[in-house]
Amino acid sequence: MDQQYSRYIRILDTTLRDGEQTPGVSLTLDDKIEIAQQLDKLGVDVIEAGFPSSSEGERRVVKEIKKLGLNSQICALSRCTKKDIDAALECDVDLIHIFIPTSSVQMKHAVNMTPEQVMSSAVESIQYIKKHGVKCEFSPMDATRTEKSFLHKICQEAQDAGIDSLNVPDTVGCMIPRTIFELFKELKSFLKVPISAHCHNDFGLAVANSLAAVEAGADQIHVAVNGLGERAGNAAIEEVVTTLLVVYGYKTNINTRLLYTTSRLVSSLSGVSVQINKAIVGENAFAHESGIHTRGVTEHPLTFEPISPELVGRTRKLVAGKLAGTRGIQVELNEIGIYPNEAQLTEIVQRVKELGDKGKMITDADLIALTSAVMGQVIGEEKIVDLCDMAVITGLKVLPTASVRLTFDGKEHVAAETGVGPVDAVLKAIQKLTNNLGKIKLSEYRLEAITGGSNAVAEVIIKVEDEKGNIVSARATREDIVMASVEAMINGINKCLLKNRNQGKKQ
Amino acid sequence: MDQQYSRYIRILDTTLRDGEQTPGVSLTLDDKIEIAQQLDKLGVDVIEAGFPSSSEGERRVVKEIKKLGLNSQICALSRCTKKDIDAALECDVDLIHIFIPTSSVQMKHAVNMTPEQVMSSAVESIQYIKKHGVKCEFSPMDATRTEKSFLHKICQEAQDAGIDSLNVPDTVGCMIPRTIFELFKELKSFLKVPISAHCHNDFGLAVANSLAAVEAGADQIHVAVNGLGERAGNAAIEEVVTTLLVVYGYKTNINTRLLYTTSRLVSSLSGVSVQINKAIVGENAFAHESGIHTRGVTEHPLTFEPISPELVGRTRKLVAGKLAGTRGIQVELNEIGIYPNEAQLTEIVQRVKELGDKGKMITDADLIALTSAVMGQVIGEEKIVDLCDMAVITGLKVLPTASVRLTFDGKEHVAAETGVGPVDAVLKAIQKLTNNLGKIKLSEYRLEAITGGSNAVAEVIIKVEDEKGNIVSARATREDIVMASVEAMINGINKCLLKNRNQGKKQ
Repeated sequence: MDQQYSRYIRILDTTLRDGEQTPGVSLTLDDKIEIAQQLDKLGVDVIEAGFPSSSEGERRVVKEIKKLGLNSQICALSRCTKKDIDAALECDVDLIHIFIPTSSVQMKHAVNMTPEQVMSSAVESIQYIKKHGVKCEFSPMDATRTEKSFLHKICQEAQDAGIDSLNVPDTVGCMIPRTIFELFKELKSFLKVPISAHCHNDFGLAVANSLAAVEAGADQIHVAVNGLGERAGNAAIEEVVTTLLVVYGYKTNINTRLLYTTSRLVSSLSGVSVQINKAIVGENAFAHESGIHTRGVTEHPLTFEPISPELVGRTRKLVAGKLAGTRGIQVELNEIGIYPNEAQLTEIVQRVKELGDKGKMITDADLIALTSAVMGQVIGEEKIVDLCDMAVITGLKVLPTASVRLTFDGKEHVAAETGVGPVDAVLKAIQKLTNNLGKIKLSEYRLEAITGGSNAVAEVIIKVEDEKGNIVSARATREDIVMASVEAMINGINKCLLKNRNQGKKQ
Repeated sequence: MDQQYSRYIRILDTTLRDGEQTPGVSLTLDDKIEIAQQLDKLGVDVIEAGFPSSSEGERRVVKEIKKLGLNSQICALSRCTKKDIDAALECDVDLIHIFIPTSSVQMKHAVNMTPEQVMSSAVESIQYIKKHGVKCEFSPMDATRTEKSFLHKICQEAQDAGIDSLNVPDTVGCMIPRTIFELFKELKSFLKVPISAHCHNDFGLAVANSLAAVEAGADQIHVAVNGLGERAGNAAIEEVVTTLLVVYGYKTNINTRLLYTTSRLVSSLSGVSVQINKAIVGENAFAHESGIHTRGVTEHPLTFEPISPELVGRTRKLVAGKLAGTRGIQVELNEIGIYPNEAQLTEIVQRVKELGDKGKMITDADLIALTSAVMGQVIGEEKIVDLCDMAVITGLKVLPTASVRLTFDGKEHVAAETGVGPVDAVLKAIQKLTNNLGKIKLSEYRLEAITGGSNAVAEVIIKVEDEKGNIVSARATREDIVMASVEAMINGINKCLLKNRNQGKKQ
């Protein structure tokens, strides 16, 4: 990109520190190294790699990440104590980020110190770090609930003590864009060091508050991938960076095309799934179902998309459903090589709506079945793989074992396999048989979260890939997780075969 | 609440309309009626119930919801055509919400109309609705990308034609708080009708933009539960309403204590899970893991919480983990009736950190096991229920069947059960046996989403409840979904029994 940007905003990513404080998340050394390498590729200016004093293992993580020799600067978190700072120094980091509570409620209840103790502790810690020739970023914790005069005073003293940057944490996420804008304006008016914002998402405003801080002059934003972090998390890197670029025209060092893969990596390693309607990186962020929308984006993407999905490493997705218009369903059918004429298409759309009105999700199998009925040609017979028998057993000290009998090529085929669990066993058995059919393999397995009782419905979405690199996705919904997985897999294999057969058949 | 509010903001909920346009979501008539009743209890001013002209079924939904006689007004969406409006009128709704594209890109590519055609179509539609004595809300679709002079003109003409309210849709979510504030100020300067904001979340700013619109004078906000809607969704009702109340001190008619149950209901019926770090309603929104945080909230909740969880129908959750401080772990142990002394606690915390450094999630079983080791007393022996054998089978035309052998009360007990799937069968078999142990029952089953291969790790979290109303949660992580479910269930039963035994034993 050669366009001129009016400002450059620094990005400090805290996925490995505040992000790992997400309750329930625990990353291994290898996970963290993989994430650090990805963040470096993505182009973040600073990686906050951990909190060395919290444990021996954490210290090792920060040291190992520093040793990778990445382009990103490596930062360690530290309280304002000699023990903490020494632990950070031992890791040889580029930058130490020290914090101390400054709001009345936190000085009293989180650390039980007086304002004077807090002030001298901060100043001594900064001097101690600077004496070691290491960069220092200082955070007055809970800054946004700190009494104004005390906040100004401690920021001034911290600057005088030699900090390289000041970070302003909205620790409990209680700011709104207007109030954080005013706060940053005030701080900017008398401080010379670069100022950073660290916003929490308790009211869903972490991104908006970060942007308002930038409007008021903030030089750096603390972010985390997928907005991970304590409670409702931190500002999401994907949202902050994309908005800065697209809406404000401000430059960051981020390669936005890697945002989606970074999100997927962190989601998979942390085990925290991203909701489908999450901005930028959610499954639906560039998906369209309703008629007026699918028609619009098919003709001209900007009709219903603020940015091109490719900018953030995504592709557009059109979904069949009761609200799907003619264009969406046409695109979906074309994708698997079926080309109905206009009259047929109208009839197909009508039937999709009728199914949808019954509250039924339109599965791939449904769409193919009703298209086949409408088009008079029995697409159903093109179903090459049919499931005749399947049984699976698992238990305590029982090796998960599955057998399947499939028909294809006019013959019956039988296979048995073991796996780490019943789903793994049965999908392996199926793939053993379909290996001859264009080497179709499972490339992704996804089971949506189930909440409710043990009899709640499970939804499985799979992707299969054949030797030509064709990828199709298929899904199935059942109360039995194993059966849902098998059905999705068989659907996927048949779609893949159908696509192959119909390639080039366009009427 | 008796405090005085300076303003009242109307809430129009579009979960049943824009929310159902979430790609992949399809709700039955019964689902929609259940959601409408919940929205009415919650206190929304207007329920946008559907888009009657889209299908026969949709028409029936809107009619049935209207017939419920709720306190909330019932609204139907309609394009600016006689056919659409007639379909809405047929449903006898209180309010018809009509829309037509007004931006150049959408007039051309979504509907292929000239600005003059758009204008006359809008005005005629408004007059047609008002002639029938029904309230009318008008949306210039894609208002935020509409040429200013045309937007002003069509709003003025719509007002002159008799609309009851104007809605300003940020259809592709391209606004930031500052720009939407300015737009609303402008519109407010010459329009007399109430103005509403309908914000999309493409950059993660739907909530912030809605609030900025309110700051500029907006009288109503369009929201959806869990932020459902096209692409990245709409403004989330839980975030908008809580922030208006807590930060702005503005009144809405919403009973915030029902926000969480409403979120759960919609998540369960729509199948769209809420990410754990979602503000207000995410699992982690009021969860704390790291030491400094758990110590703070245990002493004084406001230390690390902007609002009381009870305000939105939640409870606080402290999580053991590598970053968990002493207080968090103590609270967790106390909860199940275990009271280590300070030295023991320090040792337990140390061991938790060591486990965490290996990237291991600290399960309940882990915590009990290492506590038992540290405290010298064999808490393990208090494990009353032990799994000896378990086998489960499922398949095509195979009734999912499970058998279990458990030991408790010094004896072996055997049971078999069938279910809708293997997990259901085995959990039913276990409950059949433990029914005598204080009538412990499964009250909630949750399987986290699995992404990756068919051999990815499954995490199951369950809640069990005994006859005294004690509720404990437990989890287990395994590659085999069935085994993970069984292990979580046995953990839960043992925690529940342990809690019961230790009640009152405080040292």
